[in-house]
Order: sequence, then structure tokens, then C-alpha cells
Amino acid sequence: ARTGIPEVIFGEGKDPRDVRAIFLDYMERGEQLIATRVTPELLEALSDKLDALHHYADARILCTRQPEPDHTRQTVMVISAGALDRRVAEEACVSAALLKNPVERVFDVGVAGLNRFAVELDRFDNAGIIIVCAGMDGALPSIVGGLARQPVIAVPTSVGYGASFGGVAPLLSMLNSCSPGTAVMNIDNGFGAAVLATKINQLASRAAASPKG
Amino acid sequence: ARTGIPEVIFGEGKDPRDVRAIFLDYMERGEQLIATRVTPELLEALSDKLDALHHYADARILCTRQPEPDHTRQTVMVISAGALDRRVAEEACVSAALLKNPVERVFDVGVAGLNRFAVELDRFDNAGIIIVCAGMDGALPSIVGGLARQPVIAVPTSVGYGASFGGVAPLLSMLNSCSPGTAVMNIDNGFGAAVLATKINQLASRAAASPKG
Amino acid sequence: ARTGIPEVIFGEGKDPRDVRAIFLDYMERGEQLIATRVTPELLEALSDKLDALHHYADARILCTRQPEPDHTRQTVMVISAGALDRRVAEEACVSAALLKNPVERVFDVGVAGLNRFAVELDRFDNAGIIIVCAGMDGALPSIVGGLARQPVIAVPTSVGYGASFGGVAPLLSMLNSCSPGTAVMNIDNGFGAAVLATKINQLASRAAASPKG
Amino acid sequence: ARTGIPEVIFGEGKDPRDVRAIFLDYMERGEQLIATRVTPELLEALSDKLDALHHYADARILCTRQPEPDHTRQTVMVISAGALDRRVAEEACVSAALLKNPVERVFDVGVAGLNRFAVELDRFDNAGIIIVCAGMDGALPSIVGGLARQPVIAVPTSVGYGASFGGVAPLLSMLNSCSPGTAVMNIDNGFGAAVLATKINQLASRAAASPKG
Amino acid sequence: ARTGIPEVIFGEGKDPRDVRAIFLDYMERGEQLIATRVTPELLEALSDKLDALHHYADARILCTRQPEPDHTRQTVMVISAGALDRRVAEEACVSAALLKNPVERVFDVGVAGLNRFAVELDRFDNAGIIIVCAGMDGALPSIVGGLARQPVIAVPTSVGYGASFGGVAPLLSMLNSCSPGTAVMNIDNGFGAAVLATKINQLASRAAASPKG
Amino acid sequence: ARTGIPEVIFGEGKDPRDVRAIFLDYMERGEQLIATRVTPELLEALSDKLDALHHYADARILCTRQPEPDHTRQTVMVISAGALDRRVAEEACVSAALLKNPVERVFDVGVAGLNRFAVELDRFDNAGIIIVCAGMDGALPSIVGGLARQPVIAVPTSVGYGASFGGVAPLLSMLNSCSPGTAVMNIDNGFGAAVLATKINQLASRAAASPKG
Amino acid sequence: ARTGIPEVIFGEGKDPRDVRAIFLDYMERGEQLIATRVTPELLEALSDKLDALHHYADARILCTRQPEPDHTRQTVMVISAGALDRRVAEEACVSAALLKNPVERVFDVGVAGLNRFAVELDRFDNAGIIIVCAGMDGALPSIVGGLARQPVIAVPTSVGYGASFGGVAPLLSMLNSCSPGTAVMNIDNGFGAAVLATKINQLASRAAASPKG
Amino acid sequence: ARTGIPEVIFGEGKDPRDVRAIFLDYMERGEQLIATRVTPELLEALSDKLDALHHYADARILCTRQPEPDHTRQTVMVISAGALDRRVAEEACVSAALLKNPVERVFDVGVAGLNRFAVELDRFDNAGIIIVCAGMDGALPSIVGGLARQPVIAVPTSVGYGASFGGVAPLLSMLNSCSPGTAVMNIDNGFGAAVLATKINQLASRAAASPKG
Ligand SMILES: Nc1ncnc2c1ncn2[C@@H]1O[C@H](COP(=O)(O)O)[C@@H](O)[C@H]1O
Ligand SMILES: Nc1ncnc2c1ncn2[C@@H]1O[C@H](COP(=O)(O)O)[C@@H](O)[C@H]1O
Ligand SMILES: Nc1ncnc2c1ncn2[C@@H]1O[C@H](COP(=O)(O)O)[C@@H](O)[C@H]1O
Ligand SMILES: Nc1ncnc2c1ncn2[C@@H]1O[C@H](COP(=O)(O)O)[C@@H](O)[C@H]1O
Ligand SMILES: [Mg+2]
Ligand SMILES: [Mg+2]
Ligand SMILES: [Mg+2]
Ligand SMILES: [Mg+2]
Ligand SMILES: [Mg+2]
Ligand SMILES: [Mg+2]
Ligand SMILES: [Mg+2]
Ligand SMILES: [Mg+2]
Repeated sequence: ARTGIPEVIFGEGKDPRDVRAIFLDYMERGEQLIATRVTPELLEALSDKLDALHHYADARILCTRQPEPDHTRQTVMVISAGALDRRVAEEACVSAALLKNPVERVFDVGVAGLNRFAVELDRFDNAGIIIVCAGMDGALPSIVGGLARQPVIAVPTSVGYGASFGGVAPLLSMLNSCSPGTAVMNIDNGFGAAVLATKINQLASRAAASPKG
Repeated sequence: ARTGIPEVIFGEGKDPRDVRAIFLDYMERGEQLIATRVTPELLEALSDKLDALHHYADARILCTRQPEPDHTRQTVMVISAGALDRRVAEEACVSAALLKNPVERVFDVGVAGLNRFAVELDRFDNAGIIIVCAGMDGALPSIVGGLARQPVIAVPTSVGYGASFGGVAPLLSMLNSCSPGTAVMNIDNGFGAAVLATKINQLASRAAASPKG
Repeated sequence: ARTGIPEVIFGEGKDPRDVRAIFLDYMERGEQLIATRVTPELLEALSDKLDALHHYADARILCTRQPEPDHTRQTVMVISAGALDRRVAEEACVSAALLKNPVERVFDVGVAGLNRFAVELDRFDNAGIIIVCAGMDGALPSIVGGLARQPVIAVPTSVGYGASFGGVAPLLSMLNSCSPGTAVMNIDNGFGAAVLATKINQLASRAAASPKG
Repeated sequence: ARTGIPEVIFGEGKDPRDVRAIFLDYMERGEQLIATRVTPELLEALSDKLDALHHYADARILCTRQPEPDHTRQTVMVISAGALDRRVAEEACVSAALLKNPVERVFDVGVAGLNRFAVELDRFDNAGIIIVCAGMDGALPSIVGGLARQPVIAVPTSVGYGASFGGVAPLLSMLNSCSPGTAVMNIDNGFGAAVLATKINQLASRAAASPKG
Repeated sequence: ARTGIPEVIFGEGKDPRDVRAIFLDYMERGEQLIATRVTPELLEALSDKLDALHHYADARILCTRQPEPDHTRQTVMVISAGALDRRVAEEACVSAALLKNPVERVFDVGVAGLNRFAVELDRFDNAGIIIVCAGMDGALPSIVGGLARQPVIAVPTSVGYGASFGGVAPLLSMLNSCSPGTAVMNIDNGFGAAVLATKINQLASRAAASPKG
Repeated sequence: ARTGIPEVIFGEGKDPRDVRAIFLDYMERGEQLIATRVTPELLEALSDKLDALHHYADARILCTRQPEPDHTRQTVMVISAGALDRRVAEEACVSAALLKNPVERVFDVGVAGLNRFAVELDRFDNAGIIIVCAGMDGALPSIVGGLARQPVIAVPTSVGYGASFGGVAPLLSMLNSCSPGTAVMNIDNGFGAAVLATKINQLASRAAASPKG
Repeated sequence: ARTGIPEVIFGEGKDPRDVRAIFLDYMERGEQLIATRVTPELLEALSDKLDALHHYADARILCTRQPEPDHTRQTVMVISAGALDRRVAEEACVSAALLKNPVERVFDVGVAGLNRFAVELDRFDNAGIIIVCAGMDGALPSIVGGLARQPVIAVPTSVGYGASFGGVAPLLSMLNSCSPGTAVMNIDNGFGAAVLATKINQLASRAAASPKG
Repeated sequence: ARTGIPEVIFGEGKDPRDVRAIFLDYMERGEQLIATRVTPELLEALSDKLDALHHYADARILCTRQPEPDHTRQTVMVISAGALDRRVAEEACVSAALLKNPVERVFDVGVAGLNRFAVELDRFDNAGIIIVCAGMDGALPSIVGGLARQPVIAVPTSVGYGASFGGVAPLLSMLNSCSPGTAVMNIDNGFGAAVLATKINQLASRAAASPKG
């Protein structure tokens, strides 16, 4: 496509037969097809083809070809807050890898470990772009953004209950982050974060290839 | 009153003549009367009596007698996030002082200073109770609560714009704090935070006076 | 942890195999592990170990060791409004007990019994901290707070239908309580109330141990 | 009108010249005209006629003729919670009186006085219909309704700040009242409460006039 | 109870064993017990006793004794808008009957029939109190209230989809009814409407029994 | 423009100097320019040109040329509910006239007049398209739509207070209208209603000019 | 009916036995009956009659007689944005056909194809009325409306997740469309769009039959 | 600061004397100080110093030093939708320039010009990063994002009325953009967009300076 992002199917709610047909088509042509939010029904409909496909269970992603990272690109670091935020963080990680970015995971960074966190700052400096997935209070992107020079992409998750309102609490928190310039995604949208990271990385590559001034 | 908290008037919206009458009454009897959210209109109506009263402009509090802290009580530390949160933080400070608590201010703790913040942890250990006032993302109480053993009282402020929705963003953030046990107050309710701190301090005094077990 | 609160797992949504592994680890080391919001799936995954564990069905809590109340602490009184609020109230009670607080239950205090309620006020004076769990109109904490000198912790519950919006009605009611200083928790967060009560009790103990002034 | 309720104008936002014209018309015909929510602009436009009109400043009501209560009807008791709720309570009182009901005021019944309140229950038994106006937590109608056999009409007021959301908090509280059968009005709608009380009183009069069975 | 309304249990969410126990107790004592929102689980738990009980399937009400209407009271007319609003309307009808009111049903009064509706106005004049149940636009109570002299009780239902938001659309419509004095209930609260109608009818009976003036 | 609707400026918030410049430009060229939501500031900035312009005060519309209705088109009937809804209704009327539609006004059709309304149905049959402007409960479009065969365009107004939430109550009511096929506009958007009516009328003209089949 | 729209049943939530009875009645009389939102339960209840009925699975519509388009009417073009919006688009298509309109489908017009879309504009000129179904950002009706002279009817769908809030995001987007005069329907209300299109087409037919002026 | 973004003051609500003091301090030291959202009160307080400062009225920005763009960086293109969105777009432009980015403005790209827009695509290819500011339906970022390979930063504006809810409509539209990877900012936060663009540009510069792989 004109935007440089390959075809990606959103699986949830789709008719399993339609999705199967598209997969068979891409497999035959040997092209990459990525499906996010794959449901048990979709997997069932493709059960006889799963050996030839790549399934990332935690990330709920199914695709025809393995990731082929472009090592000239900057590393995308994916940070998650709580144990339950991992699902969304994995969607971001696997999507970013399939879109050719080197990926590094820093999971389960809870508020309890903040003093430890402050110490490890150097490690973060190796990353080019940081994605932060957090539910509940959505405070982690503010903390990361207050310390990092990198672009920070915040993904609110629907993790929480009661007044988290399915992710509204962290969404609002992130939109109002005290750390200016935080890029906010839709609730649970790990895939979108990976697309933005990819577009940033592609820009950096173009800039490196043909420097201005 | 039965609850041990003295009479406090909420000034906003009250008829200035009514408020003047109550003040004159308390002044005559030499008793403590506290008014919060005092407006310019109320001050105008009492302009001839202001010399004999105590007015805390930032806190928007007017009262008949000065604070008389009870130094056997634990210190109430009041932390504020941004410059504009000071107004609510001052309401908490002055209220707490008038309710006889020793008070310590730690203002303008922005996200930028988090690494500095982590270093100063020992200072916080001297406080008995911590009140945190923050607008925008409301992240600060989670950070403090993740590091402190003290009871933490969070006050969301209406500081912010757009999707802060007049304080809803930090309110939801605080209700969903990753740091469990955070006590949440209404938006901008610095006074309520001071009352809760006072009730906690009174309990501690009673416990010290007549130990159990 | 630095905060003095032991490790607690939120069960809902977790992978049963992960939770089982953590429990086996703690059981082997003979340490206390508490899981709240335990689901039938989690219990199933630990079915062969339930004899050696402690399961509180109403509270939906599972742990490795029994409560060992510290009788030098103040009693935490847990009041519930309606029959369906008991579940949340039990979460508060069992959590508070496991965090070493003496606990007293006052359940099913409906609005119908308010005249009776006013009479029993003396009984409440024996408690150090009061937790009030209520759904629907969330009016009970205001009533208790108007009569009690103790710190009052209000837990809105998702009990109700229609315009209760899953607990929003009592949440807003409690945040706007006419009884100032009410500490508000997230909807259905009985555990958080117990943590705050514990932090208050620990402060009282520290105050008793090393008096100021 | 078919409904038995006389013509009532809602003043806010109306063109003062239009309202003046209607008043002059009714004055000439010697008929009762009631305007609620009268603004300073409306009063200004009728300043030369105010001597011949009746203006109730607190209630913000202007009318051509005085109340003429029908003493065969049941008393409408109007209870208000806080000092700032009086404005709405007065709208209910004056409207009810103008619609021919005997009216009794019980103002400033705060949560602090609940034990006193429980004692005065007998006094309430003299009323036929009870209107309760309350802002903030909107808890008072639940308390009254739990003790009263009369129809209870609840009017949420916009008194409060922050998470009261202009009266949404008491509105939701009242819709979810633990005291079943509470009739809820729009926020600040003291007039509507008076109309409902009138319709109930008219039914009672009809029932007394021509008994069934 | 002091309020003159008998004991009523809300069935949804209750433990079937608890509810069974209460029913057995009341059956033994020969007293009236009413349960609303009875679920299949509750019916199952009482399956061996259903012959001796009264079950109203559409209304989801179970009780120990049949209605015994008091024919000296005014008729409660229950009007419903659409086919799916019947469930809530039946809850209002059966509750009102069990609380001793004569009841008349006027169901499926859609907007299409408004010209027919205007003609039948006389029929409505025979009723003492009118309950209107409507979902979607919630317009029917405004129409009825604009034509009726009786007290009108409006019950918004959760019938609808999309922007009806589970009954919020008709709830707001009713709170803002152009027909002043409309008494509004919680969404789907047919029972509450019956309680209010009963309190009004009881007042009318008391007024008839001991006339004033 | 491609859509057949002439240039229209939304006045509110615009810099008066910019708007003046555009008007001078169109006046010079002798072309039609329409500005809606004109504020006193805009009128002030054009005060020396008002004689040569056409100003419709109630509609808040200013334009360079008078309406020139196309009498071969169907009449657009504009119905308003309450006195305060007239402002929005006038915006619809004047806009529709300027867009060349014959217009007929039916204002102040309150709920009280519904029986009268039902009688006048024949009059409505003369209109081709009906626009209904209503605030508060937004019930009127449902009533009209239940009786009319014409396309009905509903405009919710911000008239009301409290739980009307600035027009949300009638907006939701209209989106959930029991009369299917109601076209809903944004709150207070009388202009949009006129544009839709125009597009419908233009289609009818095209259909009449070149009949199919 | 007076409005010229035949009887249509909303299937969801209806008792299957009631719906079966109505269908049998209409089949016997040989009249058209349309049911939308038919559920598997309804189909099951009519399983022995399905051969004689017409079932449109994607549209979830069941009816007694086939569409009989009136070819003198203008074509209704139904455009859908994403793959999942097809369901609602099909409800609009089948409903429009059953209401006698010629129908043309333009499905899966995603944002990626906008440059292609701009090229195909001529094709759209053949349609008389355009219905656009879109979820997520709801941007498509603005794009279509900015280019089309036809009346545009926008149907927000519940397709999306997180901050789409079940269709609220596209609903608000459409109500605020930069393309004025967009007719907005309730979320997922393809049927309503078809009714409005029919009323517009009927008006055009009447206009063609008896021209004015 | 650690993040590479210089000190920026948010002006709205600040005490003019405090802001004056900070400006004097920075002016003396000859350092860059940027204040956004400067109000007339702040300008008044600095009126004697304005000659030595730089004031961008449309952008509401005041600073001590002029922009010094770094021409080795990628161009930041700022696109605005409607005339009223310019204010926010100017905040983004001036902020981006002050943070050393080359800036290009593409203002007033309304939906009407979409066919023209599609033609100009090549021009956009010269930009490195695209910021899109839009109110009302917030559709423009979806359109741009569907055509551009660059990172797209979307800023919802509070432009609109009624159901735009102060910018909520475009905010939700942007969060649900059909064009994946759109970075969303808080409502009216042009400054935040400029900060994110700067962080992306800085990354590109670092990548160009020390290529990987
Ligand atoms: N997990 C996801 N979250 C958000 N958008 C997605 C996701 N997966 C795929 N998409 C986007 O959804 C669109 C595919 O929609 P569809 O044609 O309905 O499959 C494409 O624009 C994808 O880039
Ligand atoms: N304070 C009030 N609150 C609510 N409705 C009122 C009030 N005062 C008058 N009304 C009603 O508003 C309508 C008058 O509206 P209008 O014709 O615009 O003056 C009538 O139905 C009155 O009964
Ligand atoms: N899919 C639909 N969405 C909205 N309204 C519908 C739909 N299908 C039928 N209706 C309308 O719903 C009403 C039928 O409601 P009921 O009497 O409950 O079947 C009629 O006014 C129909 O025109
Ligand atoms: N227009 C703006 N929108 C959002 N944040 C801003 C804006 N201008 C400055 N800031 C940020 O607000 C903070 C300054 O807050 P304060 O210390 O209260 O002046 C810094 O983090 C700035 O980067
Ligand atoms: Mg966490
Ligand atoms: Mg801050
Ligand atoms: Mg209860
Ligand atoms: Mg009060
Ligand atoms: Mg209906
Ligand atoms: Mg009206
Ligand atoms: Mg799409
Ligand atoms: Mg625009």
C-alpha cells in the first residue's frame, strides 16, 4: 500500500470461512498475511493449515511468514505495567517484529519497582522508540516519558475493573500525561502502536539514507 | 460535634450577609470558625473585620483563630504535582494546620524530577500521613503510594484541559491506582483530605493513649 | 515490600497455570501468599492442593496461611448495606484479617433500620476504623460518617441495576459525601479498603511505640 | 388546562419584552400568572409593575396573585439538606403554595443531625406529602423514605462541585434509592415537585369527595 | 414496616439456598412474601414448592399469597409503549396488585396509534394513578402527562439498542418531560412505580378517612 | 460547489475582521453569502454595511441577498415545540428560505396541545418535508413521525436544564425515536436540517424533471 | 399505516411463539410481514415454515414476500466502510428493497482506497439517495457528503473496540460531520436508513406525479 | 532536561507576577523560555518587556528567543481542517519551530476540497512528519493517514458545538481512526504534537548520525 504497511486483517467478528479463504489465497501466492485478534473459531477453521502458519497465542496473531527484522532499524522497546497487560504488549511486540523492527521486551514494571526502575535508565537509552502498555491508572507512560528522550507511544489497556471503565481511566490519564508529546493509541491497540513505531523507524531510515542540509 | 471536627463553612455560593452574621457571632464568642472557598464577595462583606480574622489567600480560607498545632501528632506531608495544583494543596495544608496537625509542604514534584524524587525517599519517612494533590494524569499518588508505608490520601485537581474533563482524568487514575489502599477524595477537595488526615491522627493519639492487647 | 503490605495476586483473568506455579512456590517456602478474586478456573487448577490452602468462598480469597490477628491493633469494623453487598464486605473482612487486623462484621444495615442504627451508636465506638460497603444509592457511608469520629473508608459496590451504572451511582455519592473526609475506594474494591485500614493501624502502632512531643 | 395545573412560564432565556407583555395581559384580566426562574433582566423589564406583583426572591418566582391555600388539602412538607439547597426548596415551597397546597418548611437537615432527626419522626407524620431537596450525595431522600409512609418526592440539586457533575451525583443516588418508590425529578426542579404534590393532593381530594367501594 | 410496604426480596444475584430458606419460613408462618426479579435458578431451588406459591412469569414475581385488592382504592392504570416494554409493565401491574391496588392494563400504545389514543381519553379519566412504561425515546409519559390530571409515574425501560444506552435515553427524556410533575423511576423499575402508586393511594385513603378543614 | 449548496460561513468564534473582508468581497461581486451564528461582534464589525445586507435577528443569520424561493419545490414545514426552541427553528426557516425552499412555520406546539394537534393533521399533508425542533424530552418528532408520511428531520435543541445536559436528552430521544426513519441533526443545528431538506427537494425536482421507468 | 410504511417487527428479545403466531397469521392472509433482527431462536420456532418464507441471513431479515422494486423510483446506493460494517449495510439494502426501492451496493470502501474513490465519483451520480454505514472513526459519510449532491444518510455501526464505545465514536463523528445536512440514524440502524430513503423516494414520486408551480 | 525538550510554561491560570519573574530571570541569563497559552493578563504583566520578547498572537505563545530551525531535520507539515482549527494549528507550528524543526503550513483543508486534496499528494511526500488538527468530525487525520507513509500526529480541537462535546467527538474519531498507527494528542494540544514531532526528528537525526547494522 501507499503507506508502506502490509495488509493486516482484524480477526474478531469475521466469518471464519472468509478468513480461511484469504489465508489460502496468500499461502498459495507465498505472500505475507497478518491477522490480529484471531479467535478460537478462526483457528479452528484453519486447523488443517496451522502447521504451515505462524501462530503467536499470547499476541493472538496468525500469519503466513515469520518476522524478518531489519537490523539497520532502531530497537522498539515494549514496556508493560502489570501481568495482565502482557497480552496487549505481546500484540505490540509481535506486530512490530512482523513489520520488520528489532524488538525488546521489558515486562511487569510495576509501581513497586520504581526505585529499581530509575536505576536501569541506561538500558532504555539503547532503544530508539518506546511503547508502554498499561491499564488501571495508566501512570507508567508518564513516568517513562519524564525520563526518556525517545518518542513514547502509550497504549491504554482494558485491564482493571469498576471505575477503570474498560480502559477509559488509563486512556484519559495518558491523554493528560504530564510528560508532553506522548502518542496515545486506542484502548488495547498494541497493533496500532507497532504501526506508528514502524512509520517512525521508516522515517529514520529515509533520513539516514538521504540526509538533508 | 460528635465526629470531633469543628464547624466549617463552605463559602462559595453563600449569601455574603449570612456568612458575615455567622462570623460576627463566632468572633463575639471567641470561638474558632473556619470558612473554605471564600470568594472576593465574602471578603468584601467582612472587609471591616479582616484585621481581626486570619485570611490565607492561596488556600481561600478565612478563620477566626490561628492554627495551634498539636505536636504530639504525626506530621501531615502535603505533596503537589504541578504549579497550578498548589491552590488545592494549600487548602489541604491550611485546613490540616487549623485542625491541629503539624504540616510539611513538598510542592511542584513534577514527573521530570522522578529520579531526584526516588533519592529523597528518606525525607518522606518522617511524615505520618501523606496527602498528594495532582491534576492532569493524576499519576503522582501511584508513585508515592508504591514507595510509602504511610496512609496516602489522593486529591485529584481540576488542573488541565480538554480530556482532563475538569478533573475526571486524575480522579479515575487515582481510583484505579496500582498502589492499593489509596484514599481518594472529590476533585479539588483539599479540605476533605485534611479532615481524613485529622481523623487518622486522632485515632493514632487514642491508640497511643490507651494501648490494646 | 517497602510499603509493609505482603504480596497479593489479583486472580481474575490470570492464566490458571501461572497462578498455580506461584502458589506451589510459596507453599514450598512456607510463606504467606494471598490471591483475591479467585475464579472457579483457578480453584480447579489448584484442586489437588486445596486441603493445604485456605479458601474463603464468599470473599473469593485463597491463601497459604491463616490470619494471625495482631491484637494490639485497633478493630476494623466492616459495615455492609444490603444482602448483595456482602461479597465485597467479605473481601474487605478477610483481607483485613490476613493483613493482621482484628475484624468485626456489621452486615445488612438497610435504610429501614436507621432508627435502630442510631441507637446502637455506642457499639461503633469500640472500633478504630470503619469500612462501609454499599451499592445502589451509596448513602450509608454518609450516615455513618456523620455520626462517627473514626476514619471511614467507603467502598461502592456494583450492586444495583439501570441507573446505578455498575457502581457509578454509589461511587459519585460517596465522593460527594456530606460527611467530610470519607476515604473512597474503587467500585467493589474491598481489598483496597483493607490495605488502607492496615496502613492506618500500622501508623497508630508506630505512634504508640514512639510517641512524639 | 385539562391537567388542572395553571399556566406557568419558565423565565430563564425568555425575551424580557415578551414576558412583560404576557404579564400585562394577565394583570389586566386579573388572572393568576406564575413565572419561575425569573432573572434580573425580567424583573428590570417589569420594574414599574413590581408593586402590583408578588416576587419571591429566594424562589426566583414572580406572579400576579398571592397564594390561596386550600386547607382541606394535605400539608406538603419540604425538607432541604444543606444551606445552598434552600433555593430549590424555596422554588418547591412557593410553587406548592401557589398551586393551593398548605406548605411546611424543614430546612438545613444535615447528616450531622441524623440522631436528632430520628427523634423528630412524629412531626413528619403530620405531613401528607414530603418533598426532599438535596445536592452532593443526595442521601437524604433515602433516609426520609426509609422512615416515612408518605409519598416522597426527591429533587436533586446542582449544589456541589467536582464529581457532583452539576447534580448528576444526587440524581443517580436518588434514582437508586434503597427506599423504594421515591419519585425523582430533574436536577433543581423544585417546581416539578410541587406540581406532582399538587396532582397527588387533587387525587386525594377527589377520593375524599367521591369514595369508592 | 413503618412505611406500610411489606417485605419484598430482589431475587437477581441472591443465593438460591438463602431465598429458599426465607420462603419456607414465610410459608410456615402463612405470611405474604414477595420476590421480584426471580431467576430460573431461584425457581429451580423452590421447584418442589411452586404448587403452593404464586408465580407470575412475565412479571418475574414469586409470592406466597395471591393479590387481595382493596376496592375502596383508586385504580392504578399501567400503560406500556412497545411489545418489549410489557415485561416491566407486568412487574408494575403484579406488584401493584399484590400491594392491594385495583389494576388496569393498557398495553402496546405505540406512537402509530396516537390519533386513536387522543380519542380514548375518557377511559383514562377512570384511573386514579397512571404508570407509563416506555423504552427507546421515552416519549409516551410526556404525551400522557400532557393530557391527564392524574399523577403520572414514568418508568424508563432498557428496551432499545445503540444510543438507548440500556435505558438512558428514555430516562433522560422522562426527567426532562415537557409535562411537569412526572415522577421518574430507575430504569426497568416497575416495582418502584407500584410502591409509589401504593403510597399515593394510601394517602388518598387516609385523606378520605379523616378529612381536613 | 459540487454538492449544490452555496458557501455558508459559521460566524461564532471567527475573527470579525476576517468575516468583514469576506462580506465586502461577495458584496462587490454581487453574489450570495450566508453567515449563520452571527454574533454582536460580527454585526459591529459590519455596522456600516448593514443597510445593504439582510439580517435575521432571531435566526442569527446575515446574508448579502434576500431569499428567492423556488415555488416548484415542495414546502418545508418547520415545527417547534417550546417558546425557547424558536431560535433554532428560525435558523432552520431562514436557512431553508435562503436555499430556495418555500417555508411554513408551525411554532409552539407544546404537549398540552396534542389533542388539538391530532385534529390539524390535514394541514401537515400540504408540506413536502417536515423539520421538528425540540428541546427537553425531544418527544415531538416521534409524535409527528408517527402521523406523517413525509420525511421528518429532527433537530434537538439545547433548551432545558439539569439532566437535559445541553441537548443530550432530546438528541438521544430522537436517535431512539419509535417513529422509524427520523433523520437526526446535531444539537441546535437548524442550518443542517435546512440543507438536508434542500437536498431532498432538489432530488424531487430532478426526479420530476427526468422520470425513470 | 398512515405513514406509508408497512408493518415491521423488531425480532430481538421477542418471544419466539408470539412471532411465529404473527407470521402464520400474515402467511394465511398472503400479506407482507417483515421481521428485522431475527435471532436463531426465532428461526428455530419457524423452522417448518422457512421454505415458504424469505430469509436474508446477513441482513438478519425474515419476510413473507420477496422484494418488488418500483423501478420508477430513484436508486438507493448503500456504501459500507469496513468488512464488519456489511451486516448493517445488508440490513439497509434488504429493508430498502422490501420497501420497494431499487438498491445498489458499494461495499468495503476503506480509507486506503480514497484516491480510487475520488475517481469513481461519476458512478455515484446515478444514485438518488446514498446510505453510508461506517464504524470506528465514522469518517466515510463526511467524505461522501463533501462530494455528493444527493441526500446522505449516515448509519454508525458498533464495529470497533475500546474507545469506539459500541458505536458512540462514529455516531458523534457523524453528528458533527463537516458535510452539512447529513441525516444521522441510531447505531446499527440500517432499517431506519431504509425507511428514510423510502420516505424521500415517495416524496419524489409524489412531486413527479403532481408538479407544483 | 534529560528528555531534550527545553523548559516550557503553561500560561493559563498562572499568577502573572510569577510568570513575569520567571521571564525576567531567563531574559537576564539570555536563555530560551517558552510560554504557551499566554493570556491577556500575562501579556499585560509583561507589557514593558514585550519589545524584547517574541509574541505569536494566534499561537498564544511568548518566548525570549526566536526560532532557530535545524535544517538538517525533516520538515514538520501542519495541516488544519477548518478556519477555527487554525489557532491550535498555529500552536503546533510555532512550538515546532521553537523546538528547532523546519515547518510547513497547509491550512483550511476542508472536506469539500478532497478531490483537490487527492491530487496534491506529491507535495505531502516532501514532509517528514505530519500533524493534523481538526475539530467537529475529526475525519481529516484518517484521510491523510490513509494516503501518507509518514508518521501522522492527530490533534482534536474543541471547535464545534452540541454533540462535539468540547472536542470529544474528534478525539474519539481519531482514537478509532481506520488509518492504523495515528498518534493522538489531548484536545487542543498543539504543543504536545510539536514535542512528539521533535522527538521523532531527534531520533531520525541520531539514526542518521550513527547508523546501525
Ligand atoms: N488489532 C488491530 N487493532 C486496530 N486495527 C487493526 C488491528 N488489526 C488490523 N487492523 C486494521 O484494521 C483494518 C482491517 O480491517 P478489515 O478490512 O475489517 O479487516 C486495517 O486498516 C488494519 O490495518
Ligand atoms: N422551573 C421550572 N422547571 C421545569 N419546568 C417548568 C418550570 N417553570 C415552568 N415550567 C414548565 O415549562 C413549560 C413552559 O414552557 P414555556 O412555554 O417555554 O414557558 C410549562 O410546561 C411549565 O409547566
Ligand atoms: N431494526 C430495527 N431498528 C429500529 N427499529 C425497528 C427495526 N425493526 C423494526 N423497527 C421498528 O420497531 C417497531 C416495532 O416494534 P415492536 O412493536 O416492538 O415489534 C416499529 O416501529 C418498527 O418500525
Ligand atoms: N500548551 C501546552 N499543552 C500541554 N502541556 C504544556 C503546554 N505548554 C506547556 N506544557 C507542559 O506543561 C508543563 C509545565 O507545567 P507548569 O510547571 O505548571 O508550568 C511542562 O511539562 C510543559 O512541557
Ligand atoms: Mg500494574
Ligand atoms: Mg503536573
Ligand atoms: Mg441496600
Ligand atoms: Mg448537605
Ligand atoms: Mg415503542
Ligand atoms: Mg416544550
Ligand atoms: Mg473501516
Ligand atoms: Mg472543517
